[in-house]
Amino acid sequence: MENGNSNNNHTINGNYETAGKVITCKAAVAYGPGQPLVVEEILVDPPKAMEVRLRILFTSICHTDLSAWQGENEAQRVFPRILGHEASGLIESVGEGVTDLKPGDHVVPIFNGECGKCAYCKSDKTNLCERFRVNPFKSVMTNDGKTRFSTKEGGKPIYHFLNTSTFSEYTVLDSGCVVKIDSQAPLKKMTLLSCGVSTGLGAVWNTADVQAGATIAVFGLGAVGLAVVEGARARGATKIIGVDINPEKRTKGEAIGITDFINPNDVDKPVHLVIREMTGGGVHYSFECAGNLDVLREAFLSTHDGWGMTVVLGIHPSPRLLPLHPMELFDGRRIVGSVFGDFKGKTQLPAFAKQCMSGEVKLDEFITHELPFNKINEAFQLLIDGKSLRCLLHL
Amino acid sequence: MENGNSNNNHTINGNYETAGKVITCKAAVAYGPGQPLVVEEILVDPPKAMEVRLRILFTSICHTDLSAWQGENEAQRVFPRILGHEASGLIESVGEGVTDLKPGDHVVPIFNGECGKCAYCKSDKTNLCERFRVNPFKSVMTNDGKTRFSTKEGGKPIYHFLNTSTFSEYTVLDSGCVVKIDSQAPLKKMTLLSCGVSTGLGAVWNTADVQAGATIAVFGLGAVGLAVVEGARARGATKIIGVDINPEKRTKGEAIGITDFINPNDVDKPVHLVIREMTGGGVHYSFECAGNLDVLREAFLSTHDGWGMTVVLGIHPSPRLLPLHPMELFDGRRIVGSVFGDFKGKTQLPAFAKQCMSGEVKLDEFITHELPFNKINEAFQLLIDGKSLRCLLHL
Repeated sequence: MENGNSNNNHTINGNYETAGKVITCKAAVAYGPGQPLVVEEILVDPPKAMEVRLRILFTSICHTDLSAWQGENEAQRVFPRILGHEASGLIESVGEGVTDLKPGDHVVPIFNGECGKCAYCKSDKTNLCERFRVNPFKSVMTNDGKTRFSTKEGGKPIYHFLNTSTFSEYTVLDSGCVVKIDSQAPLKKMTLLSCGVSTGLGAVWNTADVQAGATIAVFGLGAVGLAVVEGARARGATKIIGVDINPEKRTKGEAIGITDFINPNDVDKPVHLVIREMTGGGVHYSFECAGNLDVLREAFLSTHDGWGMTVVLGIHPSPRLLPLHPMELFDGRRIVGSVFGDFKGKTQLPAFAKQCMSGEVKLDEFITHELPFNKINEAFQLLIDGKSLRCLLHL
Repeated sequence: MENGNSNNNHTINGNYETAGKVITCKAAVAYGPGQPLVVEEILVDPPKAMEVRLRILFTSICHTDLSAWQGENEAQRVFPRILGHEASGLIESVGEGVTDLKPGDHVVPIFNGECGKCAYCKSDKTNLCERFRVNPFKSVMTNDGKTRFSTKEGGKPIYHFLNTSTFSEYTVLDSGCVVKIDSQAPLKKMTLLSCGVSTGLGAVWNTADVQAGATIAVFGLGAVGLAVVEGARARGATKIIGVDINPEKRTKGEAIGITDFINPNDVDKPVHLVIREMTGGGVHYSFECAGNLDVLREAFLSTHDGWGMTVVLGIHPSPRLLPLHPMELFDGRRIVGSVFGDFKGKTQLPAFAKQCMSGEVKLDEFITHELPFNKINEAFQLLIDGKSLRCLLHL
């Protein structure tokens, strides 16, 4: 591991001595579906044109990492691979043509990038960049179709994941997938902005545009669902109903802002009927954060007809159909998907980071565990067991 | 038939001598699924509180009448019944408490009414009135759960349909389902505002809010689909792609405003791919007016990712699921339903009628046939054979 001192105080001034060189560092490599990650030394190439190399300081694990590691979707299986997409760190060096980032900048990687130049980036209706949008099938760099990671022994390629691959002390990303944030921002918490918190909060603020006085229901109180709760609380929603089959989620939900909790196993009718009764016909907005089609249907039906909107955030890996009848759209309920909370990452996250710094958005409840990087397999297990929201790994 | 003279010049001054009395008049009665309608004399009761009785002067047939007549959805079968929901006429008499309508007013019935007082009517997000929204299962008056129609022999009840039942010289409706229009408006054309034209045009203006320069695709060039075309033309859409398996629809489509025509049987790849190639990635808006799930999927995929919106107008009677995978929502395409073009009927149709009178909206192409009322079965056959858009029946 290089530059230990610089990492500890979280600043890198001027150019790294490693710039332009291959770096040898530790990474957690996935060699096959469900096989324990191997923390080992790998080689990381310098960044090419419009790419940057990051020193990752903190990373955490989200269900998308879990799903990729387990190989749930066969078509997305690529090994060996470095997973991870939620992180924070510093710019170590930049490739040719990068002008908006420089060594030492405090940054968070984003799996759903923003080139700033394509028709999508120029539209105010989408955050899906033509070049760097989230793509679970992508495993190499856009520039040359190759990897920047290789094994120390034999120099075999190790594949990338979600534009980010943060389970490594050093990683290479397209500069469009890296957001510079305030140098005073606490990097440990900023890790959450890479995915979960931005996804949940943004779904409330950007996708649904929840207003003060609104009523909402959140299905699934993991980190994303609880970020929805935090976003609704910050916006002044008056009723925030949390739904989860894990009774322990009530306490955490209440700490963040739910006003009501429903455990589907404790009620004698479908949850959507319970919610309709509690809210005079249904909530204004529901958020599906469980990745389960039966839950999605309950979420859809729990909104008020005429004006209800369901935002889908959960990942549904199996190719089943939406459990809705077309005529049900005629009741005036809407359903939309939301990727990365509809945040345009490079444009909007710097201001969002400041809202988190000021306390307007509270992040403390989301970090439930911290471990050294080499205990990454333990961190996976905490997530599998539903014990952690986010376990921060220190690199 | 009463008051033949008054009908011919389309005015009724002052109170009808029939007010408060049972009227004997002709109606086309459906006695069973698919059985030819029987034009016979029936009895029509006076309107009760907040109801009005209409003298229907013109009516036409829409696919929803056809579907109900054929009994496609078993749960909606109720016979004997008076179908019909697209019409125009005059107020013959009003029930207690009706203040916004008076005998002689020129009116169009609406199957999706507007009470003006419920939470839905007060919301700007929906046109689904709590009391008088479209309801295919309703077959009696809201007031007392009874019918206002009965057979001349034996006085057996004849059921209502879609809040309207316009296949009768006289019919009784809730006043919330009757819109007063300009007395100078040409009633024959105004019939189209009762359903098809409002549904299609409103989907463009209200639901999608298509702007000048937009690109659209319309799947199914029946009356509703062509009304979508007319709405898009009036709004200044620059590319209006019509899609229909009936090659004869090209001519009619071009007369109204399509710029391109695709017959799915004439292309060697899925229509959505053809449309994406023609439009640099997809249209801004697509409209599904065919009531077919395979078509719905093509319509959905033919819009541009990131900002495309599909509006579903077609009726899908079978309880199959939406042919969409939840993850497809993450490509930023939206899908919404539209009922009666999201028009709040009583509030908005009077102004819309004036736009039709001024020529801003052109209706001439929609009336392809005219027949006397007693040839209603011929009119049904014209629709079944795809020969007519709207056949106006003169009562």
